[in-house]
Amino acid sequence: MNGAEYLIQAAVNEGIDICFSNPGTTELPLVNALDKISGMRSVLGLFEGVCTGAADGYARMKGKPAMTLLHLGPGLANGIANLHNAKRAATPILNVIGEHATWHRPHDPLLAMDIEELASTVSGWVRTSRSADHLAEDVAEAIAAANKGQIATLIVPSDCQWTQVTSDAEITSQPDLISFDESILQMTADKLLKTKKTALVLGGAALSRDGLMAAARIAAKTGCDLLCGTFPARMERGAGLPVIHKIPYLPEMAVDMLKVYELFVFAGEREPVAFFGYNGLASRFLSDSKKKIHLNVSPPQIIAALTGLADALSAGPDPDPSFLAEYHRPQIQNGVLNGMKAGEVLAALQPENAIVIDEAITNSLAYFGLTAGCPEFTLLSLTGGAIGQGMPCATGAALACPDRPVINYQADGSAMYTVQSLWTQAKENLNVTTLICSNRSYDILKLEQVRAGVLTPGPHASRMTDLSGIDWVKIAESQGVPGVAVATAEALAKELEQALAQDGPHLIEMRL
Amino acid sequence: MNGAEYLIQAAVNEGIDICFSNPGTTELPLVNALDKISGMRSVLGLFEGVCTGAADGYARMKGKPAMTLLHLGPGLANGIANLHNAKRAATPILNVIGEHATWHRPHDPLLAMDIEELASTVSGWVRTSRSADHLAEDVAEAIAAANKGQIATLIVPSDCQWTQVTSDAEITSQPDLISFDESILQMTADKLLKTKKTALVLGGAALSRDGLMAAARIAAKTGCDLLCGTFPARMERGAGLPVIHKIPYLPEMAVDMLKVYELFVFAGEREPVAFFGYNGLASRFLSDSKKKIHLNVSPPQIIAALTGLADALSAGPDPDPSFLAEYHRPQIQNGVLNGMKAGEVLAALQPENAIVIDEAITNSLAYFGLTAGCPEFTLLSLTGGAIGQGMPCATGAALACPDRPVINYQADGSAMYTVQSLWTQAKENLNVTTLICSNRSYDILKLEQVRAGVLTPGPHASRMTDLSGIDWVKIAESQGVPGVAVATAEALAKELEQALAQDGPHLIEMRL
Repeated sequence: MNGAEYLIQAAVNEGIDICFSNPGTTELPLVNALDKISGMRSVLGLFEGVCTGAADGYARMKGKPAMTLLHLGPGLANGIANLHNAKRAATPILNVIGEHATWHRPHDPLLAMDIEELASTVSGWVRTSRSADHLAEDVAEAIAAANKGQIATLIVPSDCQWTQVTSDAEITSQPDLISFDESILQMTADKLLKTKKTALVLGGAALSRDGLMAAARIAAKTGCDLLCGTFPARMERGAGLPVIHKIPYLPEMAVDMLKVYELFVFAGEREPVAFFGYNGLASRFLSDSKKKIHLNVSPPQIIAALTGLADALSAGPDPDPSFLAEYHRPQIQNGVLNGMKAGEVLAALQPENAIVIDEAITNSLAYFGLTAGCPEFTLLSLTGGAIGQGMPCATGAALACPDRPVINYQADGSAMYTVQSLWTQAKENLNVTTLICSNRSYDILKLEQVRAGVLTPGPHASRMTDLSGIDWVKIAESQGVPGVAVATAEALAKELEQALAQDGPHLIEMRL
Repeated sequence: MNGAEYLIQAAVNEGIDICFSNPGTTELPLVNALDKISGMRSVLGLFEGVCTGAADGYARMKGKPAMTLLHLGPGLANGIANLHNAKRAATPILNVIGEHATWHRPHDPLLAMDIEELASTVSGWVRTSRSADHLAEDVAEAIAAANKGQIATLIVPSDCQWTQVTSDAEITSQPDLISFDESILQMTADKLLKTKKTALVLGGAALSRDGLMAAARIAAKTGCDLLCGTFPARMERGAGLPVIHKIPYLPEMAVDMLKVYELFVFAGEREPVAFFGYNGLASRFLSDSKKKIHLNVSPPQIIAALTGLADALSAGPDPDPSFLAEYHRPQIQNGVLNGMKAGEVLAALQPENAIVIDEAITNSLAYFGLTAGCPEFTLLSLTGGAIGQGMPCATGAALACPDRPVINYQADGSAMYTVQSLWTQAKENLNVTTLICSNRSYDILKLEQVRAGVLTPGPHASRMTDLSGIDWVKIAESQGVPGVAVATAEALAKELEQALAQDGPHLIEMRL
């Protein structure tokens, strides 16, 4: 078995079953290994940002690492923005990069870059294999590192791929369990009961079904409000689950929302800070005078900690139904489409068990609030803020959950960043319905201009937000995805129902 | 004047007249400064790889730095692949990246990355401004660094942009002139005359008109052959210029071509090494036993060195016309199109003074040899090997030279990487004709598979090279560029003539 085959076999043995790839010459032995070793699905992306974003979406849904296979430094560089999003979402990824042969690299061939330096910006673990003899150990450590919920980048020179491997190494994936003083739970319980206005801020696994139900028990007992960060990596949402309030994107709104609370308990989420620093506004939303308790546990321990806290409160085993969202769908308002109506149509029609990827940016503001009473669904958002995540994330989520409808609620400017995702959706016949919020503008920048006091931007500034001239139906069709444009809410409702009823990818351009 | 206005004004004062941008909130003061300070054109790219590739193309044609304006770490990451190409081409770029406000950055907002670490992989100079007080000096040093033919990355926290600048700093752009012992010229001249089979290997400014004519004088006097590297950043080519032989991409062919020479003189080019390391093949094409002379001069000194060498040889002031290429165009062979015929049509029809960007990968093999006798034109190639350069490079070249026809000879797989370039070409109404080599395959990878001995790739490997399902006419039209598909050489000839006769961008899908 050569190094490439060893790597693929070790990954398969560990349950990694998909590889999002755009390989080149330095990765050919790994490509050929995919044909020698069974159990790994390979998916081609026509740009590396598609591969890394899809790996993120897949791993968020599966809760286990996806693999990528990228070509040298430039291939990695193209995938870094979505690896950054994955890092912020604590997504496990085995990120494999080919490298020039060990004896060739010192000659500085034209494609050579400092791959480790690039990788270190997004990876929790980075290593370049020195030889085929070291590969077994490197692979074991890389997979163990990825399993901890981070990006593990393994850089494999091509000679290490094609050389026979004689050694072996055991993969010992121990999650980093933090020794957890359970007395903090009783202390937290006491403070929650004693303090008037309290908030439990949830993130990571706390937003899973089990986490949310434990949180609901706590809320029912203590009256605390349940909050989440602005961009949760993954949350379950809908009727029968507790209502979660999202901390707003705009600092003024966030500060206004949070000022009423005296005590914050953080579970799987860190203290919120402003997305950007604004002249005259503080970075932190919470002053030092606010009481804060951080349940400092590792991701796998979050649900246990919340359950422990509920038990410490002697909360009932099931939360009072009045603390859970009732079934409710918005009415569809007919007429000319706008961001609010688009959100209403989606919330009115999205099927039970749907996976919704939200990269609608300015247009997601309305949508979230409309979905508390929808049939239970999974929401993935742009955790790291690097735009161009929605299209590939939807691609990966659809591969992870072929039996669930995937809806990508997608801003047009962000969609252009990784527009090649549509080709993979067509090639793999994925059940993704892309709803393009076609406002032909970087509206978020216009909003930020107004906030910065620039009420009438000059011609240069106006050009920087003008996206006019994109025909999304043709973009979809050019890559094999059926596309249609709509300008009214009723047309959107009709087309969305039709797209969801049919197999395979669809794109609807919502002219806003 | 705030920091942003100071930066733009200093760049304009230094002759930098274009800024390729995809800004975000942290760059808004710089965006607004473009409206306050006159003299800087702003061009929006819908993906940062478009911006950096266009800056590369613009600066290659203008011989002075272009500016970029990118959003934080993810924006820079998206532009790194084409910055790598620019670095390998020694292109001057003032690469400006916004950063969170100095007091906000320590709170690790979601979009925060280690921007310096990312930038260091491609930049000759990197700095983050500490305060508005330091900005004047930082800007001066950044511009001076860019002027030296490298990427200078200046990272500007948003508070440094919006704060008033009171200091000033002079920009002292001294090229790094290497003290050059002219006795090496006489020694080189003697060796060229005394050695039987000699080659002069040209790169950088040696491939300009002046450099080439000096090289032709040397060749006429000594009988040396004139060679260039496989991927010259920019070369002038055509009838009336000396014939240049390109060192082939494939190591076997390169070794075979180079084995006949006893002496190599390098001017603006380094010793060639294989693009990739292959099992059983050496990295270097030239053995230690070959005699090599490197004219170790800085880029601005190359032409002077070649002229000095010609003078030391007492070569005539004008090269003998027999050493210059005669006018010759290939015949257009009618019938079903293939890569050879596509190259023939292009070489037969490309106008005098055209700028041709060659990212045709496997299909460029035939084209280069056909163009020695074309009317004089400029050829730009994929110097760094990071695919996705042709489309943006053509965009930048057309902005630099609005009166010259720009032809982008472009592989389909590579084109998908930065396909958003077409939107900028339409928006700016640029005279770019894109010829897509639509073979629906990563053919270079198939070639490399055969070289690696894999004659029948398995299903996984085959999927990794299959690009079927892209409609390039719709891709063009979706972004406002007229598109047409052709399948015969005569249809290509007709459509190419028509596209070149009309203003604005065009795309021709060549079905190969």
